Parts: sequence; structure tokens; C-alpha cells
Amino acid sequence: MSQRTKIKALLQSQQTEIDVTVKGWVRAFRSNRFIALNDGSTNNNIQIVVDFENTDPALLKRITVGAALSVEGKLIASLGKGQTVEVVATEIEILGDSDPEKYPIQPKKHSLEFLRENAHLRFRTSTFGAIFRVRNSLAFAVHQFFQERGFVYLHTPVITASDAEGAGETFHVTNFDLDNIPKTETGEIDFKQDFFGRATNLTVSGQLEGELGAMALSDIYTFGPTFRAENSNTTRHLAEFWMIEPEVAFNDLVDNMDLAEDMLKYVIKYALDKNADDIEFLTQRLTEEEKTKPQNERSEMTLLEKLQFCLNNDFERLTYTEAIDILKESTPNKKKKFAYPVEGWGTDLQSEHERYLVEKHFKKPVILTDYPKEIKAFYMRQNDDGKTVRAMDILFPGIGEIVGGSQREERLDKLEQRMNEMGIPTEELWWYLDTRRFGSCPHAGFGLGFERLVLFVTGMGNIRDVIPFPRFPKNAEF
Amino acid sequence: MSQRTKIKALLQSQQTEIDVTVKGWVRAFRSNRFIALNDGSTNNNIQIVVDFENTDPALLKRITVGAALSVEGKLIASLGKGQTVEVVATEIEILGDSDPEKYPIQPKKHSLEFLRENAHLRFRTSTFGAIFRVRNSLAFAVHQFFQERGFVYLHTPVITASDAEGAGETFHVTNFDLDNIPKTETGEIDFKQDFFGRATNLTVSGQLEGELGAMALSDIYTFGPTFRAENSNTTRHLAEFWMIEPEVAFNDLVDNMDLAEDMLKYVIKYALDKNADDIEFLTQRLTEEEKTKPQNERSEMTLLEKLQFCLNNDFERLTYTEAIDILKESTPNKKKKFAYPVEGWGTDLQSEHERYLVEKHFKKPVILTDYPKEIKAFYMRQNDDGKTVRAMDILFPGIGEIVGGSQREERLDKLEQRMNEMGIPTEELWWYLDTRRFGSCPHAGFGLGFERLVLFVTGMGNIRDVIPFPRFPKNAEF
Repeated sequence: MSQRTKIKALLQSQQTEIDVTVKGWVRAFRSNRFIALNDGSTNNNIQIVVDFENTDPALLKRITVGAALSVEGKLIASLGKGQTVEVVATEIEILGDSDPEKYPIQPKKHSLEFLRENAHLRFRTSTFGAIFRVRNSLAFAVHQFFQERGFVYLHTPVITASDAEGAGETFHVTNFDLDNIPKTETGEIDFKQDFFGRATNLTVSGQLEGELGAMALSDIYTFGPTFRAENSNTTRHLAEFWMIEPEVAFNDLVDNMDLAEDMLKYVIKYALDKNADDIEFLTQRLTEEEKTKPQNERSEMTLLEKLQFCLNNDFERLTYTEAIDILKESTPNKKKKFAYPVEGWGTDLQSEHERYLVEKHFKKPVILTDYPKEIKAFYMRQNDDGKTVRAMDILFPGIGEIVGGSQREERLDKLEQRMNEMGIPTEELWWYLDTRRFGSCPHAGFGLGFERLVLFVTGMGNIRDVIPFPRFPKNAEF
Repeated sequence: MSQRTKIKALLQSQQTEIDVTVKGWVRAFRSNRFIALNDGSTNNNIQIVVDFENTDPALLKRITVGAALSVEGKLIASLGKGQTVEVVATEIEILGDSDPEKYPIQPKKHSLEFLRENAHLRFRTSTFGAIFRVRNSLAFAVHQFFQERGFVYLHTPVITASDAEGAGETFHVTNFDLDNIPKTETGEIDFKQDFFGRATNLTVSGQLEGELGAMALSDIYTFGPTFRAENSNTTRHLAEFWMIEPEVAFNDLVDNMDLAEDMLKYVIKYALDKNADDIEFLTQRLTEEEKTKPQNERSEMTLLEKLQFCLNNDFERLTYTEAIDILKESTPNKKKKFAYPVEGWGTDLQSEHERYLVEKHFKKPVILTDYPKEIKAFYMRQNDDGKTVRAMDILFPGIGEIVGGSQREERLDKLEQRMNEMGIPTEELWWYLDTRRFGSCPHAGFGLGFERLVLFVTGMGNIRDVIPFPRFPKNAEF
């Protein structure tokens, strides 16, 4: 028996009147005659034409939605609407049945909520097939972008001994019998007896270790899972998510902004090129979804237009201070429409402020720089004004912050001083400080929340729908 | 000031007599005249020629091993041995000093043990620069191999609710205050109050979730961290390591072997092409190291020869049963040289047996198939003999098992029966069984331990030296 040909290849075939074997899952079967078969290689189905008069009725009955089939037949030019080729079946084998009374995924519109509960089967829907193919392309494009530029992909550790960044709640990792945790004589937990001989947790960022790599290999990036034990049940947060964190020796903040903007445009373009069908489908999906909203809540642009707009326009770059001035003078602020009025300098921006800047004021992606040091991490390079640091956040329409980064503080004395001010233990981070003791140099990097990028490119509204098996409070199913 | 040019590009430059800016770290400074500068882009240094008579002696003193420099100068053809170009410096700036009294990495041979304790700085050595550039190439090659074949890269969860495979000890993940773990009325741990509302741990494999993807997208692969809380202090085990796990619908075991062999050859060839300098360096390193061993313990082939041999030869394929016959009749078995004599059929092979088959008998990579079901996991497809399963292990010289895989049991009744026999909870894995209930089909996959691959290609002896920051019992530093 011949090997299967993937449906994507069949649909692009220049040759017809050839014998083919195709395998996949039934998406629909109509008139006992036309099977829509999908194998996940593309969002499009191939039409299988069944000679129902000469086919065993018992077999026909088993061609149900979700069943796995192997079909031999002839690929011919199709006269039907919506496809250029189809397969006239000569032999149909049922590889696996799918009881239509029990199969959860029916050929109708399911709610995203329902599909989330059936995340093991939602890959079989057009929406999620498209999402995960786009996600795949974005992930590969990230690698290709950095590889073309000579970066080294570094696997930083997932299990770490410190929440040095103080970025938020971390998950404990332990090998203790939780029913019987050993204690020292003074009644404290005896972490010396734990697997790693100390308290450990899941990483919140690979940046600090990434910097160690950059201070020798010059250009590195990480791409791995990171974790937050924050009890936030929102459409924008996950307990487990993937981050991309480049770190580049000798780069300053302008280089850093250029790198981030280039990367975002590169990966979006890659997905547009590779996944035109999927993005077209997702564009239609979003347009349909938006029709259910009141006019003033609908986007001015379709998904596809938004992506192209993002490629064709420079991101707006301005300082936090300039942004505050714009926000203070803005109509919603003056009319007291913001839930958090913008009054002075120094506080963090709320989502509503970011959205105003991106979606109303500039109408394009925005890079804000030079934030007040009080609201940023200890490792960011201090400006001479004594008030701000060389931070940058990239804000995207509908998403908010998609990238956060900075030039790093490379001066040992300044770094230690800031760590002391902020209560970051310098002894624990001896290895981080060593890079400032020996051959320090200016360098910069950023973190891209991968799922936020996938959200943007797929036009989905809930971050739980763009990662295969989302982890969030009270949910670790599958 | 002009942007820097990376040293790799400078060394390959066809143009000379041009002004360049180069930045990097001092590897050596001899005769107050010649700086060997490295920026991690290549294992080779560029020579900077210093006009020491016209340079401030205070500056010359600061050009020490490990210091970070920015150098402006002219790229000229070199008359010296060992390089084709060099930079005549017109301006040298010390970006970061490195106190030679305190800098741990001196221009001499350090033990691998010492460098492991200084893993934050070992990237700055030739050996570890080469290792991590090779590791990078292998990782990217894995992605490129699968992308070229239309696979979807799937991020399977790191935090999971079950050790369904029963593969070994897992690490607990919890958000509990370990000093005050809530209990139910009956005195059990009240996991309902934990972050995910149930007991969770770090994944030992993404395979089961990967299969869910394959049963819709056809061809998927994972590439992510996996964890074992085994207390094994060996040169072959890590508590945290990276795995690649492809899973392909409609593939049988032969397809699976072909895919694994193609992949291994592809990624090794990619590294040989991209990292010729690094692999040459690592080949010399290994040859030097082997000189310290007794003649009979040295390899017959150099590292480079081993890699090329692996590309140029088909892997030997035979069944477990055939392997047992060979081992039983082997000289070491008859002469009672094996620590574990091979007597009958049914027990697992020891490392010494695998090495005999690979290194002595066949002298090439070996794929063993059809293992006794008792020593393999529940999800492997049962053969008709009632005794064996469609498993495969790929054994590599010096490494042992580098790939483990199987055709999966796609028949619901057989799968449930085996799970019951082995005490695997079917209720917990309802989602896994659903793929056999709805549109099941033959499929196969495997797992590649990424660090074992890096070990093989770099010729290193200890797995802790091929991952940036190794995690093992009593160690989670950095």
C-alpha cells in the first residue's frame, strides 16, 4: 500500500488523474456521497466522492464525524464549488469509528468555553487547527529570526533557587513527602534534605541566566516556559506560559528597540506568508464574532488589516514622561472617563491608558521608554536624571504590553546600590554580579510573552485558547 | 561610532584595509602587543595589534584576561601564523575591567569540575563556547527538520496532574505554604486548596498530550523541558533535561524508525556543516583527553570520524529477541565478563549489553525493536505473540539509549486491558482514552533526550557539561 499524501499537498497538486492514498478525520459527510476529510496539514478539507451505490451500507453508516479513514482513489479536477480537486474513492477503510451519539465535537458551532473543556479534541476544529498551526509558525519564525542573526539559543533552567526578580508569586518545587516535611531542631523546614538541598521554585524568567550567556557569547535568546502563581483569572494571564528572552552584549536601548521591532515584524510576516489560509479563516471568524458586538466596540480594521498595518508602520517611540503628558491632556482624562485618572508623574500605566495611547492616540504599536525607576526592576540601567531607567515596553492594540525590556545596569556600584535599596539579596546573586565584576559591558534585552503574540496574530480574545493545555487557577486538566 | 562587526564575520572577510569596530573579551594578551579577542560568535579569536609605544601604560595594564574591550582599527591581512586577518588598533576602550588577581577563568586548563562550579563564566572558555554553539545548532536543526516535513511544534504542559506514565519519581509543584499545609477533616492534605485544586507535579514526558495533537494535526513534535526526581548522581542523568517527542498519526514502527534515523542524521549533518570549527576543536580536545587513558580504553575513531560514520551507515535494526541470542552467544557472556550475565529472555538490557552490541558487535548505531511487554510502558502496541510490544530503542556508541519510542496501542480494548493489568488509572486518563474512542488510528512516536544527543556530538563525557545550568541532586545553583 502506498504512503499517504497530505491533504495540503493534494490540494496544491498540479497533477490530476493520479492514484492517491489520503488519511484523515471526517469533518462532514453529506448526501451519503461527499466526505469532507481533514488531516490537520491545512485548514481546508479535501472532498472524497463516495460511490454510494456500490458501497456496503454498513460501511457508509460508519462514516461519521470524527471517524478516522484511509481512502484510496483517484485525484481529479473538481467541478464542485470551493475546491479545485477531489478524490474519487475506490477503497475506504475505517481506521477508527466515532460514535455520533457520543462524540463531543459536532459539525456545529461550539462555544470556546466548551472546547476549552474538551481541549484534547479541540485541535480537530477549524478554529483550533488554524490557531495551533499559526502558533507553530510563529515559534519557528522566532528561532529562524535569531538564527539568521547569529544568536545562540540558550536553555535556561526551569527549576531555580531564588525569585531574585521578585516578579511575583512563584510555585514551589519539592521532592518532600508533603505529609511529612522534615524540620530542623529549631522547627524550620529542613530544605537541606530536599532534592536540591535548598528551597527551589519554578522560574519566572530566564533573563538573569541569559545575561550570563550574553556576557560571553554576545547574542543569545531563550525560548522556554515560565511560571506565575498569581491567582488572576483573566483572559490575559496564564500560570504557565512561554517566553522569548533575547539578551545582547554591547546593545543599548535603541538597538534593543530595533531588535524587538524587527523581530515582531519578521514573525508576523512569516505567519502571513506561511499561514495565509489559516489567517484568512481567523479573520472571518473574528469579523463574525464582532458582528455580535455593538458598533462602537468593533475594530476599525479586520485581523488581516491589523497585521498588515503592523508590518507597514514604524512603531511610535516616546518616553514615559511624554506619554504621561499626552494622557493628562487627553479627552478621556479631562472628561474623567478613565477609571484611574492620570494626575501626576510616577505611577504605572493602567491597561486603559495603554489602550488609549495605542488604539486612539497613535493608532499603531507604541514603544514607551525611560520609566520611573520605582516601578521597574532592579537590573535596569539608571539614567543620569536619577529618576528614570532605560526601560522599554512595547504596547500592541488589543493586547497591551507584549514586550518588556531594558538596557541593563552594567555598572557594579550602581547595581549593588539599587539592589540594596530594593532589598534584593546580593549574596544570593553572586554569579549575576560576577558578570559586572569581570569584563562587564553595556547590554540590553527583552522578554516577549509568546502567548500574547499568538493572541495578537490569531485575533483570539482569551489567552487560554492559544496554548494547547492552559494552566490557570483550579485547572491542570490533561 | 560605528556598530560592531562580529568576529566570525571579520575572520571570513574578503575585504581588508577597512575600518572596523570589534567588541569582545580578552582571551590573552602577549608581549604588551597582541590581544586575542573573542566575542562568542566563533571559537576563533581575532588578533588585535596594539601600538604599545603610543598607548598609555595605564590602559595597557587594564588589558587583562576577561576584560571587555571595544576596539576601533583597520582590518589587514595578517602575516602571523594561524590567522588570515588581524586588526591594527587605533583606539581601545576598556568597557569592563577584569582583575587578574580575582578573575576565576585563567588562560590555562581548568578542570571541568571547576568550570561546572563556575558555570556562569564557563561560556567564556573555548570548550564551552563550542559546546553551546553546537547545542544551539542541534536545537535549531531539530526544528528545521520537522518544519520542513510539515510537523506542528506543540507546547505540551510542564505542570501536570498525573504521573500517568509511572516513569519515575516526579517533583511536586505546589503553591502551599510548606510550613502550613491545609488538611481536610480526615487529616489528608487538602489539595482542593492548592493553586490548581489538585496535586500537581512536573511533567516526565509530553507524549500523552502530544498524541492528542497528532490525532488531529497528524504530525506534531514537542521540544521542551522534562523532569525526573531520581536521586541518581551519574554522568548520564539530569533532574531537568530537554526532550524532543514527535508523534505521527498513521505511522507504524518502520515509519517511526525511518523518521528517527533521518532526524538524527539530519541534525548531526547540520552541526557538522554549521560548526566545523567547533567540532574540530572538540575533536582535538577529546583526542587529547583520551591520551591520558590506557590504550584499550581509547576510541578507535576520533569524534569527527564517529559523527561521519554515523551519517554514512544505516543503523542496524533487529529485534530484542535477536539481540538476546547474540548476547547469549557472545564471548564476554561465555567468559562471564558481563556483570549481569545474559541467561534468558525477558529481562531488560544493561548498559554493558547495549555497549557490546553497538561498540563491539555491530560497530554502529543499533535500533532494537519488539521488547517484552513487561519491561515497557502501557501505551505501546501489543504484538500478536502476546509477549512483545512494538517498541524501539536507538542505541548510540558511548551514549547507550538516545531514543526510545514505539507504535502506540490504538485499540481501545487492548489499551484498557493493559492499563488495568499495570494499575494505570483509566479514569484519570479519560482524555487519552477518548482519542481511542473517537477516530482512533495507528500512530507512532518517540522521545529523544536532547542532552544525550549533545553529548554524542560534542564528545563530552558528562551530561552536566552540555546544558548551561545543570540540575542534579543537591545542586540548583545559578
